[in-house]
Amino acid sequence: MQKDMNAVQDLVVGIDIGGQTTKCGVVDARGNVVTQTVIRSDTYTEPEPYIADVASALRKIIADAKAEGNIRGIGVGAPNGNYYTGQIENAVNLTWGGTKTIEFAKLLSAQMDGIPVSLTNDANAAAMGEMTYGAARGMKDFIMITLGTGVGSGIVIDGKIVYGHDGFAGELGHTCVVRNNGRQCNCGKTGCLETYCSATGVARTAREWLEMTDTPSLLRSLDKISSKDVYDAAKEGDELAKKIFDYTGTMLGWAFANFIEFSAPEAIVLFGGLARSKEFLREPIEKAMNANVLPLWKNKVKLVFSMLKESDAAILGASALAWEL
Amino acid sequence: MQKDMNAVQDLVVGIDIGGQTTKCGVVDARGNVVTQTVIRSDTYTEPEPYIADVASALRKIIADAKAEGNIRGIGVGAPNGNYYTGQIENAVNLTWGGTKTIEFAKLLSAQMDGIPVSLTNDANAAAMGEMTYGAARGMKDFIMITLGTGVGSGIVIDGKIVYGHDGFAGELGHTCVVRNNGRQCNCGKTGCLETYCSATGVARTAREWLEMTDTPSLLRSLDKISSKDVYDAAKEGDELAKKIFDYTGTMLGWAFANFIEFSAPEAIVLFGGLARSKEFLREPIEKAMNANVLPLWKNKVKLVFSMLKESDAAILGASALAWEL
Repeated sequence: MQKDMNAVQDLVVGIDIGGQTTKCGVVDARGNVVTQTVIRSDTYTEPEPYIADVASALRKIIADAKAEGNIRGIGVGAPNGNYYTGQIENAVNLTWGGTKTIEFAKLLSAQMDGIPVSLTNDANAAAMGEMTYGAARGMKDFIMITLGTGVGSGIVIDGKIVYGHDGFAGELGHTCVVRNNGRQCNCGKTGCLETYCSATGVARTAREWLEMTDTPSLLRSLDKISSKDVYDAAKEGDELAKKIFDYTGTMLGWAFANFIEFSAPEAIVLFGGLARSKEFLREPIEKAMNANVLPLWKNKVKLVFSMLKESDAAILGASALAWEL
Repeated sequence: MQKDMNAVQDLVVGIDIGGQTTKCGVVDARGNVVTQTVIRSDTYTEPEPYIADVASALRKIIADAKAEGNIRGIGVGAPNGNYYTGQIENAVNLTWGGTKTIEFAKLLSAQMDGIPVSLTNDANAAAMGEMTYGAARGMKDFIMITLGTGVGSGIVIDGKIVYGHDGFAGELGHTCVVRNNGRQCNCGKTGCLETYCSATGVARTAREWLEMTDTPSLLRSLDKISSKDVYDAAKEGDELAKKIFDYTGTMLGWAFANFIEFSAPEAIVLFGGLARSKEFLREPIEKAMNANVLPLWKNKVKLVFSMLKESDAAILGASALAWEL
């Protein structure tokens, strides 16, 4: 594929691996997504066939962009992706991940004729996208929180992503918000932020509250409840649905207060499917956050909702890694 | 005092401001504390007379070191000290601090014939001391926790102290460990880590438990209880005293687990008066910490107790700031 190794390679590939789908795009130096595609992530039980299918998808979008031989590198955002080693470890939210250690960067590069692959976790990639193209442009200290299937985080301090000693820093979705009798998390712990404040956490709250109370609600007519259903009900004025967002936002605010005491960010940036419910989340988050920080930070830390198109942002963020290769 | 402005200035001053005492030392380039002194911090209600007395103390130890005109700079570690502005703000644990904003660096420099003054919080200074001379030598990612009158913290990421957007990062003593009905903290919030796990928090636990239970204990014979008394009783085999350390260590372990999810440090370094009780604290801390981190960090993050002499470490850490001036 890399036909002319002496030519200037002025395109990169960004890949965003989510629990359900994988988004791939060819990106130019000005941050345009030239070609893109999506494949499923959740129909595999082993990493090898998944990686082979990702490689096929990449070959297709690279051909569509007439970019054979012109790809400088591939940047990947993946749950539990390790920037230092290129491995995915203990990714319990991926059907082909589990507790294994997967040499993802190495395996994908081998399938792509040796194009170098750089990898980080999906939230770090989103933070890079937000810093380069989005709501955090010009900020040197912020915390990116992704509210999707899980709760991810990318921490930027002094303009740089925090990777930590082992490359896995920024697992704020697994900080504890409920100490006693907290919800069971996929990670094995209980009371993790993501069991309450992810899209699945919101749906879980809805199911629990419908069962525990007699409160009338539009949600009672549904067979299966998603966080989108809770949002739609809240839009219709449903009191239970609005209370669910109050509860979710309050827990996020509690958690954010602790994060602020840690790194004193300029802003907390929210991203991901659930962040689209900002009309119901902003007020309870800000209330709980400001009630739980030291006086010096009260009403001073910005709460920002991403304005980037979600698919683009994830691809762009991941692709930013590849420019460094 | 600065007699010969052209001479090479090869000494610095380090000042550690604590709630009760202020330690000052003249330090050479090899990290030897050449001369030092201690004055009280808790007999003042206004900053100006305190700063005047600090300046007098400095003039004396500089004269003792025959170092007039030879001081390159003064580094200060102080509760709520802001590296960016040189101010001390909202230092509720200082009798002369309160909710005021004190231009500490500027005022002290004016009293010292213009010698430049650099300031950070006491825990950041301790972290610099530990990184330069102590248990964290060679580490690029660690969290320093100081267990004194309060609980302070200095966070080092990629070899640098984290100051955050406003200079106040690292207030981990004010992260919430008890959400409901937590103890009232001096900062105005409830449930802060330092209300349970500082020296005063340990004494408070002792008083509460003595009142709430009938458990026999050596501590019952004392009028006033300090954390040192609890330590002495535990050494004598007192069951209640040992349980107090179990409780304190468990809370610290809970909190440390959350900190690890944030920055993935190589180690957590404990320092300060209460850290001397390591024989009773290590086990409960490690147990709670490892039970509450993601599997990937289980039994991997070191828990290190500082071995530096406390007075030296604080002075050395603060003095390290001055070399950068």
